[in-house]
Amino acid sequence: MTYCVGVMLENGLVFASDSRTNAGIDNFASFCKMSLFERGGDRVIVLLSSGNLGGTQAVISILRQNGKHPDCPNLWNTESMFDAALLVSDAMRLVDKRDGEHLTKDNTGFYASFILGGQIRGEPPRLFRLYAEGNFIEAEDQTPYFQTGETKYGKPIIDWVITRSTSLNDAAKCVLVSFESTMRSNLSVGMPIDLICYKLDSLAVTMRRRFEPGDVYFTTLGKKWIAGTREVFTQLPALEW
Amino acid sequence: MTYCVGVMLENGLVFASDSRTNAGIDNFASFCKMSLFERGGDRVIVLLSSGNLGGTQAVISILRQNGKHPDCPNLWNTESMFDAALLVSDAMRLVDKRDGEHLTKDNTGFYASFILGGQIRGEPPRLFRLYAEGNFIEAEDQTPYFQTGETKYGKPIIDWVITRSTSLNDAAKCVLVSFESTMRSNLSVGMPIDLICYKLDSLAVTMRRRFEPGDVYFTTLGKKWIAGTREVFTQLPALEW
Repeated sequence: MTYCVGVMLENGLVFASDSRTNAGIDNFASFCKMSLFERGGDRVIVLLSSGNLGGTQAVISILRQNGKHPDCPNLWNTESMFDAALLVSDAMRLVDKRDGEHLTKDNTGFYASFILGGQIRGEPPRLFRLYAEGNFIEAEDQTPYFQTGETKYGKPIIDWVITRSTSLNDAAKCVLVSFESTMRSNLSVGMPIDLICYKLDSLAVTMRRRFEPGDVYFTTLGKKWIAGTREVFTQLPALEW
Repeated sequence: MTYCVGVMLENGLVFASDSRTNAGIDNFASFCKMSLFERGGDRVIVLLSSGNLGGTQAVISILRQNGKHPDCPNLWNTESMFDAALLVSDAMRLVDKRDGEHLTKDNTGFYASFILGGQIRGEPPRLFRLYAEGNFIEAEDQTPYFQTGETKYGKPIIDWVITRSTSLNDAAKCVLVSFESTMRSNLSVGMPIDLICYKLDSLAVTMRRRFEPGDVYFTTLGKKWIAGTREVFTQLPALEW
């Protein structure tokens, strides 16, 4: 499994991904699921991947390789995040065309989905969620975040806390707590957690952190959150019979 | 979908179930998913059902009908909750034998699962979770609760708060908050919510409530919980970059 979250705030974007991959319960490994395409002053594009690792890696390899050919449309020369989403979609369909049939024979099928977000000069920050079929949706005010993978355990927390006007740092804290709840219930979501907070119009990544297992801040956050929610509990009105 | 929870505490048992059923997104209805078999001073048995309504209703009808024949093993004369679980399992397999093949033709299949709990005189309270296949597991100290249906949204809250030593009232509050989180994310889980708190060795149900849409206590609980968790949030340490 996987857990990825992208949030679109008034003041920027937050991205987070776990690193656990597994091919069966007896075959776990660790791979980074966050890809960054950054050219200072011009664009910051972040891609969070979930699905078959072979497929998501191939999509990213295609995107990176195409980036070396300035005569072709690629993530370094697209004029909008919408066009960037189309490029990711095209790459997904290319991989599906090559591998899909072979994987289906084995009852696996090609499965990859992505959260894509960032800012290209001349546009506001934008956030997309690409489905396995290559179609995609864009975040807006009413639903300013997307999740992929094991989305359920960590969703209520995000719903309670995050709105478009939440600060970058508060949203980052919230997303980390959401990861804590998810990892507590699903062993196939695991550290390290990669986190990027992108500040509106900065066109550069200045806040990026990787939380390794045992990270002091992450551990403290989880403990304080659970202690705090227990305290909220004791103060809730008792049920009258 | 459905959401049911059963919790086994040092001081008794808590049961809760939603009432929403649906056959497709355009066909919602309301049915009680909680069945009670109570004979004061002798036994309290609660059954929470999820799955195809036709199947779960048939299982309960069989259990009730068999209860009218004192010469046959039934829920009124079983000597243990383990035997009660076997009777539920037998009824499930009977319904599957009759309907399973016909439902499979229609790509539906027979699907029913249950949470069964209660106390029979001479035994401590016990709690079981019956799978669709009719096999079952029993709760113990380390995992004192079971959920069926839409289990994920409401699980973290239960994990944060409930242990074996939690009081009945606190566990009931927690289960209600867990329902609130679940219903917020999954429209196919809906009110009314049926709740029973069974007090250890009472061999009678004295605490039973139905929460209808708009219930003042339930609404207040949800609001205070969200306000409280937001406050916990603001007090969590900020992330240093």
